[in-house]
Amino acid sequence: MIKPSAPLGEFDLIQRYFQKARTNENVLLGIGDDCAIISCNAKNSDGQLAISTDMLVEGRHFLPGANPRLLGHKCLAVNLSDLAAMGAKPIAFTLAIALPSPNPEWLSEFSAGLLALADEHQCALVGGDTTAGPLTISITVFGSVDPNKALRRSNAKVDDEIWVSHTVGDARFALGVLRQEWSLDPSKLSLVEHRMHAPTPRVALGQRLLGLAHAAVDVSDGLLGDLSHILQLSDLHAEIHIDDVPASDTLQHQSLELKRLCTLMGGDDYELCFTAPPENRSAIEQLSKELNLQLTRIGKVTPKILGGNVLRLIDADGHDLPKELSQQYLKSFDHFK
Amino acid sequence: MIKPSAPLGEFDLIQRYFQKARTNENVLLGIGDDCAIISCNAKNSDGQLAISTDMLVEGRHFLPGANPRLLGHKCLAVNLSDLAAMGAKPIAFTLAIALPSPNPEWLSEFSAGLLALADEHQCALVGGDTTAGPLTISITVFGSVDPNKALRRSNAKVDDEIWVSHTVGDARFALGVLRQEWSLDPSKLSLVEHRMHAPTPRVALGQRLLGLAHAAVDVSDGLLGDLSHILQLSDLHAEIHIDDVPASDTLQHQSLELKRLCTLMGGDDYELCFTAPPENRSAIEQLSKELNLQLTRIGKVTPKILGGNVLRLIDADGHDLPKELSQQYLKSFDHFK
Repeated sequence: MIKPSAPLGEFDLIQRYFQKARTNENVLLGIGDDCAIISCNAKNSDGQLAISTDMLVEGRHFLPGANPRLLGHKCLAVNLSDLAAMGAKPIAFTLAIALPSPNPEWLSEFSAGLLALADEHQCALVGGDTTAGPLTISITVFGSVDPNKALRRSNAKVDDEIWVSHTVGDARFALGVLRQEWSLDPSKLSLVEHRMHAPTPRVALGQRLLGLAHAAVDVSDGLLGDLSHILQLSDLHAEIHIDDVPASDTLQHQSLELKRLCTLMGGDDYELCFTAPPENRSAIEQLSKELNLQLTRIGKVTPKILGGNVLRLIDADGHDLPKELSQQYLKSFDHFK
Repeated sequence: MIKPSAPLGEFDLIQRYFQKARTNENVLLGIGDDCAIISCNAKNSDGQLAISTDMLVEGRHFLPGANPRLLGHKCLAVNLSDLAAMGAKPIAFTLAIALPSPNPEWLSEFSAGLLALADEHQCALVGGDTTAGPLTISITVFGSVDPNKALRRSNAKVDDEIWVSHTVGDARFALGVLRQEWSLDPSKLSLVEHRMHAPTPRVALGQRLLGLAHAAVDVSDGLLGDLSHILQLSDLHAEIHIDDVPASDTLQHQSLELKRLCTLMGGDDYELCFTAPPENRSAIEQLSKELNLQLTRIGKVTPKILGGNVLRLIDADGHDLPKELSQQYLKSFDHFK
């Protein structure tokens, strides 16, 4: 836990940069003891807590020298995104961080980015651990959710329509530009790069989908790969109209091949992909207007066919994609590959 | 979160090594979705949850090439120790781990050590994250506790007696042998080394101290430093009979200077140090018998004296330690120093 009180160094540093976080009414005891204590008796939870954890490593999830303010934002955003994909409401989080050295400038920026997003969602920092080591950040978030309504991956139904929020693919597109896999006018790079560095967790959408959607997942490793987790746990298949998958204006103007690669396989977008029964279509369209957030139907859930592909990919002309191309898009993401 | 299903690599590896963990009746949804869901409505908690997190880094908290089974044990033990210091009962934990490569042999041993301790305390692994990176392990534990009874650091009272469980100092003593700061007969090294590599979190003791003790802390950074956290948060001082601090037979036979250094300043022991009113002395002695766990009185809490030392150190003859020696022992531990 974050401990106070030693005159200099680690503890002082934590006090200085991380104790200005806003609290949450469910936090009974925050930073400074062996444990934090939170109340799980939020209005919507009946004493249940949704929990998720993620670890980000320099050189793997972000580049050495990454902007610390954006990094602080992103570390929490990817965790809030997991709460969103469950329909949970954020309560609190813990932070464990290994740092090569306690650089005040870096910490000031990192904590500013982290705590700004935490404040936005009234998610209180309740504890943590800091140590010397290669730059590694691990966050665990807690949210309240009614377990009977939570958007579980295993709950998709045949004939559910498949939706995705906003647009996907920009993060992968930006990464490719930075890696010189393809090129982009520098004036347009900042827009797509921002999507990669500062993703927006769809927290409000997740909560509003309770009762409307059957299943949801956040797009962290790639749309098709993440969607396949829903299908495998629900023991179902799906067909996707791949050219209906929403892309940003910038990505929309690239070649069809590049657009498909980024939207279907690109990770790091943190949009929500969810399935909902057709009768909720107009309610979802209404929700899209209320939240001022684009929600696009991209396909539907189908019965499982023994020996068939989990995902059937269909192009703009209504034709199935050639088998080899289809297989290429269905490759999943793996951190050790 | 730990995600299932990709045919090989990360997901497969997690399924294989971490899904054999026993569950806990409070776990409503475990590994495999965006979040886990746990119930906080345990008998003793009324919907409150104690939370703690720790991060262990290779080369900092353990040596490169450390025995993976012992390492798995220790990573969870240090977190359970934080729950113990609060009097909380373990429910579940999450694991985030960065690994240079997914070595099956290493993972098999690591998970065996981790899950054996988890099973012992019926603490369910409910989620996590694995990634490639320098070996770093971050665990967050959850336990149930009545917040009105929790052993808070801020709750010590004047005249409380100060107690410590079992013996302290062996972990630091073993580290010094391995670092060749001092020497020890190899036949005796394994005993003290075991205390360093495989600490025992005092989970049962912590829960039994609810209602008996006022404040508690686990000895992770050194007895005097950790005790000073209680005193600072309680705004009190204390006097410690330093030669009453319990040491193992092995450490007891070393020079007085070495014994004091290890028992007073040595970290990594994970014993509990707690304060309790004198009228509970016999109940605590009775508890010691029931748990078959040595509990030793080492001093008492005193009023705060402006300008005075937080801790007054007294030797076996009842004399105050010389000022310079006293200051040396009162130096705190800091991960960045």
